[in-house]
Parts: sequence; structure tokens; C-alpha cells
Amino acid sequence: MSQSSSDDCVAAVDIGGTNLRLALARVHDSNPAGAIVARSSGSVVGIREPANIVDIIRTGVDDLLKQASIPRSALKAIAAGAPGITDVDTGVVIVTSYLLGWRDVPLRALLQESLGIPAAVDNDVKLAALGESWAGAAVGTSDFVFIAIGTGVGAGIVLDGRPFRGTGWTAGEVGYMLLPGLPADPAPRGKPGALEGVLGGEGIQSQWRSRWSESVTSLPRDLNATAIFDHALSGDALAQTILAQSARMLASAIYNISLVLNCSLFVLGGGVGTHPALREAARVLLSSWGTRVQPRLIASTLGADAQLFGAIRLALNTAKHAVVCRMDSSPRG
Amino acid sequence: MSQSSSDDCVAAVDIGGTNLRLALARVHDSNPAGAIVARSSGSVVGIREPANIVDIIRTGVDDLLKQASIPRSALKAIAAGAPGITDVDTGVVIVTSYLLGWRDVPLRALLQESLGIPAAVDNDVKLAALGESWAGAAVGTSDFVFIAIGTGVGAGIVLDGRPFRGTGWTAGEVGYMLLPGLPADPAPRGKPGALEGVLGGEGIQSQWRSRWSESVTSLPRDLNATAIFDHALSGDALAQTILAQSARMLASAIYNISLVLNCSLFVLGGGVGTHPALREAARVLLSSWGTRVQPRLIASTLGADAQLFGAIRLALNTAKHAVVCRMDSSPRG
Repeated sequence: MSQSSSDDCVAAVDIGGTNLRLALARVHDSNPAGAIVARSSGSVVGIREPANIVDIIRTGVDDLLKQASIPRSALKAIAAGAPGITDVDTGVVIVTSYLLGWRDVPLRALLQESLGIPAAVDNDVKLAALGESWAGAAVGTSDFVFIAIGTGVGAGIVLDGRPFRGTGWTAGEVGYMLLPGLPADPAPRGKPGALEGVLGGEGIQSQWRSRWSESVTSLPRDLNATAIFDHALSGDALAQTILAQSARMLASAIYNISLVLNCSLFVLGGGVGTHPALREAARVLLSSWGTRVQPRLIASTLGADAQLFGAIRLALNTAKHAVVCRMDSSPRG
Repeated sequence: MSQSSSDDCVAAVDIGGTNLRLALARVHDSNPAGAIVARSSGSVVGIREPANIVDIIRTGVDDLLKQASIPRSALKAIAAGAPGITDVDTGVVIVTSYLLGWRDVPLRALLQESLGIPAAVDNDVKLAALGESWAGAAVGTSDFVFIAIGTGVGAGIVLDGRPFRGTGWTAGEVGYMLLPGLPADPAPRGKPGALEGVLGGEGIQSQWRSRWSESVTSLPRDLNATAIFDHALSGDALAQTILAQSARMLASAIYNISLVLNCSLFVLGGGVGTHPALREAARVLLSSWGTRVQPRLIASTLGADAQLFGAIRLALNTAKHAVVCRMDSSPRG
């Protein structure tokens, strides 16, 4: 049986549509915040081929090991979050958005083959929820919903302390939710959901551009969502209109999710979702609607690192499981 | 230790807004369909006082025991479904609709006191889901959503084979769901949800009345929901309009629930929900929307008995639990 050493570590990957983040974390550090020993980040714009992404991951992990003076043999497992629907059992990324354009990519097998260690994969938003549950805003809460609002909108649901995935791995795909003020028919599969058009970062930007005129605001025509929300706080009327619309959509989505799950905690993550103005406006509206259990809205505390922390947690589980399996299959006596 | 005998039975109660159903079921019959040995039903219109309802239950159970020639001592437990939000842990019905008008009624304690046997209580729609899972349309399915559409609209969610209840016992209160075509703000607490206004029985009736005129249809102005759906199948244009609207709302609600839970099976129950025209029209719409996992819509097979079968199942669990507890606390040796 192999001995574990204090060098033992795992690798975590967050594959985004434009960026790839990597981290090494020690197995023997029970404090999540202190677990990361090295990390890196780089652009993957224009790189879509799974084999190329896996090469970037392998090279990146080797660089981090060198940087931290950890021998390759101490790397026990790797876990990766992918921006798409992911079959956790088979380790296959079923489909991603157009940025990566993946279909049925056996990511776990590719990682295992390339790095020669046990691997695990999951959807990035589900991993972000796991991260918040292990090391972030939802520590100690067994039931909550993590809503990621960036370019897209999606949810990671944790019930009884475990990620809830659904029959076809798509539980939490709330960016397609049908709500008052949105079209009566959902967007076709593959196209962004209507909710993303008024709550996602690019949707908010284009709402701003389409309503913008020099007579309405002195602000520039090109502003991103968080800048628009900042200007709403400073009193710009058009920015306030956009904020109110986004907040209403967010509150409506949370209200509907609450009707189904009756969860008391929603953690808001992503570049747009963590903006305090959006959260506060949604909170006020939800409070005026008076649900039986008023859900608490809080911001992600891990921010852009939520997925990465979730991937670390998953990699730690994978390493532990691999050790147990090795022990089970080792000769007795 | 008390001996169990072949006479051992449990009592099940379905407390409706206007009707109360009772059943006696044998403990030692593993076949749910054959379990019921006696049953009765009676109006409770105008009777709201919990003590009076409990008296009616006690008298009714005694009558059934006599009728089945079963001694009172053979009655091992009772379970009741209440039409309102119910705290299963404390056995308290927190709130019901205006028909009963209950608030914080300790129904379990009242039943235990009156009948002198272990009792359990639950929400009626949750029990209907349990019934379908044990003896109806969802046998063998560990994850499904039961949607009851009668006067009101509500859902019972079963995940991993167990009822999912949420933090405040209100998971599945989908009658308040916000959908395109409905008001942007939900109905205040205590008032019927907007979805019930276009999908619930009374809502459909009043939709019909408000659009009815002699020039539009040759049908009478007073028709109930199922009659309206029947006439839609026979070609009446106004009835078809009403059916299409209700089916769109049902499909939208199922779509939104599916985005959250990604459940592959929906069982439709209740007087309105079991109508084949509604189910088929909703199915066609959902199919045209093309979700990743197309949820299957099927009709409740227990119909109006779903709640009662759920209550039997709960009473059987309660009787079993009580025996285990007695054995645990009985003197050793």
C-alpha cells in the first residue's frame, strides 16, 4: 500500500469560455482557505479542441508542481469544472455553449490518460455551489441554491448537503425560466434563454444600448453590467430602470424556485450576481411579495474562485476514493 | 410485548375542504389495492372546528371497525391528510385555505388524544404523491412530481423515493408561480395564486363565464372545467380557447419546475388535472419546446383516492414505527 506524505496534493481546474484557472491544493490541510499552494490562470480564447485544452491543463499542472517544489508522484487526483451539461457518472461533458462548442467530450478519460491520475469532472456552476458549501457563503447550510449570473444564468442546487443534479444532469438550468415580461415560449435549445437576455451581463449591456440616447443619460453608450449598476446607485435614471428590470427578473426567478424547493438561502455569484445593488433591489421586491419563508439572499464569498474551490473539494473526494479503492483491492494479510 | 394479529389495521383520513373520506386498511396485506377493508365518505361543509372534525373521524372509524367486525384493539395507528401547510415533525397544520380556516391546529395530538393510538399528519397533496408512489402511477419511480389540479393547484415532489418538503414545509406550492401572461406580482398570501385562476377548476369556470356569449357558443353559460374540456374535444371554439390557455399555463409551470428539478415524470391528479384533453395539449406544447429531458406526463391512476392511499401508507409507517419504539422500550430478558 502506498504511503501518503505531507506533499500529497490535488489539482483543480476551472474551464471557462475564455479563461482557464488552475490550482494545486494540499490533501492534508483541513482548512480550505489555506489549502491552495499554487495557482495560475490564462486565456483560452479561440482554443476549442478538447485535446488542446487537456494539453494546456497538463502543462499548467506541471508548471505549478515545479513552482511549489512538489514531486509529480505526490499529485493524487485532478478535478475539472466545465461550462456545460456534464454527466458526472461517465465523466462526459454532454454539451457546452458555443464558446467551447463541445458535444459528448469524455473529459474525465482524457484527463486520466494525459495525467495518469484519477480524475473527476462536473458542471462549473454545480462545482461553484459545492465550493460555496465547503469554503464560502453556504458553509453549514445543507439546503441552498447558488445562482451564477455572469454572461449566462444558471443555478447549482444543494439538497441535504449534496449537489442535486436531476435525471438528465440539467437541474438548475434556470436561464430558460418562463417569467412575466418574457416571451411565452422558451428560446430554442442552444440559444441563450430569455432570462439571460435581461439578467445576464451581455443582456444587460444590450438593454442599456437599446434604450440609450444622449437626451436620456450623460453616460457613455458602452457600459458593462456592473458599471450600469454602479451608476444606478449614483442616481442615473436610465441605469436605475435597467437595474429595476434585472432585479425584478431575478426576484421572480428566485420566487419561482422557492415555490418548488422552499429553500431558505440563495447565494448569488458571478460578476453580475455579486453586485450589491442587484441583490438589494431583488431582496426588497421579494420581501414586498411576502413568501412564507423569506429566502435570504447573500453574495458569494469566493467570487470568481467558487468553481475552483468546488473543483478542489471534488479532487480531494476523488483522491480519497482512489485510496479506498486501492486499499480494497490490495492483497490481504 | 403485544402480539400482532391478522386483524391488525390502520385508519386513513383525507380531510378535504368539503368532504371527509375514511378508510380502514389491514397491516398484513402487502398488496396496496387489497389493503382497504372498509371505507366511508361524508360532507363536512360548514364544519370548521378542529374538535368537531376529530369527533367525526373518531365516530367514523368506530363505525368502520364495527362494519368490518374488527375489534377496537386491533387499530394500530391513524394518519390524516389536511388541505394546508403541515409541519410533519410536530404534527401541526400551520395554515389551510379559507374553507377550513385553520391556523396552527395540533391535529396529530388531537387525533392521538381522541383515538388513543399513534397518529401522523401531512399535507394532502404530499400524501397524494406518496399514494401514487406506493400504489399508483409512479410505482417504481424514485423521482417525480405530482401536480394536483382541482379547485387549487399544488405539487407533491418525491426525490430519491421520499417526499421533499422544503425548509418551511411549503415545497411544491406552485399555484403561485409567476408565468408569462400572468400578473408580474404574485397574489398576496392567503389569496389564490394567479396560476389557479387560469388552471384551477373555479378559475377555468370563471374564464368561461367571462368570455361566454350566445353569439360565440351554443353551450350553456354555467359549465364546470371538465365539461368545458369535453366540449373542446367535440369542437366548440370557445372551449378550445379556454383549454389552450389552461394547457399553456400547465406546460409553462411544468417547464419551469423541470428547469429546477429536471424530473422525467409528472403525474397529473385532481378533477381537472386528470382530464386527457388538458394533458395531451400540454404534452404537445412541451414537446414543441424541446427540453433536454422531455418530461413524461401521465394521469394519476388513483384519482380521488390518491390522498387516501397516501394516508394508508403513512399510517402503516406510523404503526410499524410505534411497534419498533415499544420493542425498544420494553423490559429485556
